[in-house]
Amino acid sequence: MEAPVTVAVLSGGVGAARLLRGVQQVVAPEAIAAIVNTGDDVILHGLHISPDIDTIIYTLADAVNPETGWGLAGETWQAMSMVERYGGVSWFNLGDRDLGTHLYRTHRLGEGATLTEVTGEIARAWGLGVNIVPMSDDRVQTRVTVPDDGEIGFQEYFVERRHGVPVSAVRFAGAEAAALSPAAASSLATADVVIVAPSNPLVSIAPLLAVPGLRDAVVARRATTVAVSPIVGGKAIKGPAEELLRGLGHEASAVGVATMYRDIASVLVIDQVDAEYAADIEAIGMRCIVTDTIMSSPGVSASLARHCLDAVSA
Amino acid sequence: MEAPVTVAVLSGGVGAARLLRGVQQVVAPEAIAAIVNTGDDVILHGLHISPDIDTIIYTLADAVNPETGWGLAGETWQAMSMVERYGGVSWFNLGDRDLGTHLYRTHRLGEGATLTEVTGEIARAWGLGVNIVPMSDDRVQTRVTVPDDGEIGFQEYFVERRHGVPVSAVRFAGAEAAALSPAAASSLATADVVIVAPSNPLVSIAPLLAVPGLRDAVVARRATTVAVSPIVGGKAIKGPAEELLRGLGHEASAVGVATMYRDIASVLVIDQVDAEYAADIEAIGMRCIVTDTIMSSPGVSASLARHCLDAVSA
Repeated sequence: MEAPVTVAVLSGGVGAARLLRGVQQVVAPEAIAAIVNTGDDVILHGLHISPDIDTIIYTLADAVNPETGWGLAGETWQAMSMVERYGGVSWFNLGDRDLGTHLYRTHRLGEGATLTEVTGEIARAWGLGVNIVPMSDDRVQTRVTVPDDGEIGFQEYFVERRHGVPVSAVRFAGAEAAALSPAAASSLATADVVIVAPSNPLVSIAPLLAVPGLRDAVVARRATTVAVSPIVGGKAIKGPAEELLRGLGHEASAVGVATMYRDIASVLVIDQVDAEYAADIEAIGMRCIVTDTIMSSPGVSASLARHCLDAVSA
Repeated sequence: MEAPVTVAVLSGGVGAARLLRGVQQVVAPEAIAAIVNTGDDVILHGLHISPDIDTIIYTLADAVNPETGWGLAGETWQAMSMVERYGGVSWFNLGDRDLGTHLYRTHRLGEGATLTEVTGEIARAWGLGVNIVPMSDDRVQTRVTVPDDGEIGFQEYFVERRHGVPVSAVRFAGAEAAALSPAAASSLATADVVIVAPSNPLVSIAPLLAVPGLRDAVVARRATTVAVSPIVGGKAIKGPAEELLRGLGHEASAVGVATMYRDIASVLVIDQVDAEYAADIEAIGMRCIVTDTIMSSPGVSASLARHCLDAVSA
C-alpha cells in the first residue's frame, strides 16, 4: 500500500495477532485498530484475564511465546506451582510475568478505569503503536453447551477440557446489553478498510458481531470489508473451529466460511490449497482471492495483509 | 513442659511467628492455636492478602525468607516487575510464589469459603500441625491517621510510607461488627495457657482485642495468660512499635507494655536488658519474668516458650 489507509481488524487471538503483525508492516501502526473479542475474558483467582487482548499485545511486542502463540516467551511458573501445592484451580496456567498484566488490569478496573483505557495503557507500555480496542467495556461471556456439564464458560471448554468435547450451542451472555466501545465504533465508522481476521467464526468473530451495532456497522460497509478464511483444507490452523463448525451445522470449509461472512464482507481471502473452492465462493456472492494464508513467518503475514488491503482499497 | 497442655497465642506477624516456632518445640503442634491479627489484611490487585497469617505459616514451614522474616525464601519477582513496567502499584512487593498463596486464597473466598477454612487449607498444604486461626472471618481494617493524608490503610502506612510518618490515631474499621471466629473462641475457652506474643501492642494485638468477645475471654482467664514484651531496651525488635507507642501517648518501655496488658495477662515476660523494670512491673500488678526474649535462633524461641508456659501452668 502506498496510499495512507486506516484499518480496523475484527480480531480473536492467535490468528488475528499474526495477521496484525503483517498489517503493521504495511500500514502505519497508529492507523490500525484491532477490535478484539472479549467474550473469552475470564475472572479467575479474582483476576480479570483478557486472553485475546494479551495474545495480540504480546505478539505485536515480539514478546509472545513462539511455541504456543500465546503467553510470554521466557515465562516462569512459580505462582501456579504454589496454587498446585494448595490443590487450587490450575487448569488455566498463568505465567508469572503474564500474572503481572492481570494484576495491573484488575487493579485499574477496580479503580474505575474502563477496559479500553487499561488495554491502551498496557499496549503503550509494550511500545505498541497499534490501537488495541476491546469490543466492549461491558462484560460479555461466551458460554458453550457441552454433554454432561450443560452450559459452561468458554475457558472451561477451551482450556480445561482442551476443546475435546462436542458443543451443541454457543451464546454470548451479556452481549445484548453490552455497548460497543466508543473507540471500536469510531474505528468502524472511519477506517478505510475492515479486515475480518482468520479467527474462529463461531467463538471469536461471532461475539464481536453480537455486540449491538457492530454487525450493522460492518454490513453497512461491506464493500470495503474483507475476511480471511480461518479454515484451510477443511481444517482450522489452530483451535477447534473445524469441530465447532461441524457440530453446529456449518460446513467446515472455505465455502462454509463464505456462507457465514457473505453479508458482512465483500471479499474472502482463502488459501491456495482451497483454490478449487474459489468459483463456489464467487457464486455465493463474495469476491475470492487465493493466496498463502498460513502465517508461518512475518513475511507471509505482511503479504497476506497486503492482499487484504489491495482487495478492497479504492 | 512435661504435662500435655493446649496453648492459644494471640499473634501478629514476625515476632509471633518466631515465638510460635518455639512453642511448637515444647508443645505438640496440634495443641497450639495461633489466633492471628487480620487487621493488616489488604485487597490489592483484586487479591486478598493476609500478611500476618502468611508470615506465620511460612515461618512454621521453614520456608520464610530468613533475611526479612516475612515472604518466602528463594522468591522470584517476575510478576511485580511487569506491574512496574505498566506503572502500576508496586509498593507492596509480592513475590511470584507468594502470589500463588494469594491467588488460592482469593479464589476460595470467592467460592464462599471462610478465611478460617482457607487458612487451614493453606497451613495443611505446608504440612503444619499448628492451627492457624484468623481472629475473625469478617473484614476488619486497621486504619491510621497520619499528617497530610488523613486516615489511610495500615499497609499504606507500614509498607508504602515505611512507617516513617507519625501516627495520631489508630482504629479498627469493622471490628465492632465482626464476629470472633468460632475456632478462636473455642481455643480461648479451652486452652490451658494463653500467650500474648511479642507483637506490636497497638496495631497487632489491639485489633485482636477489638473483636467483640476476645478481650473479655482473655480478661476472664487472666491468671493463665502471659504476655511477652515486644519492647526491649526501649525499642521494638522490629517495626514501628516504639514510635507508635510514644506518638499515641504510651511509654515505650516494658513498663508501658505492662500498663497496657495488666488487665488481660497476669505475667509479663521481659528481656534481661530490662531487668531493672521488674519491680515497677510487679508494682503495676503483673508478675514479671526476666529472660532472653530476642529470638535470634530456634533455641531461644523454645526457651522463651518454655518460660511462658511454666509461668502460668498449674
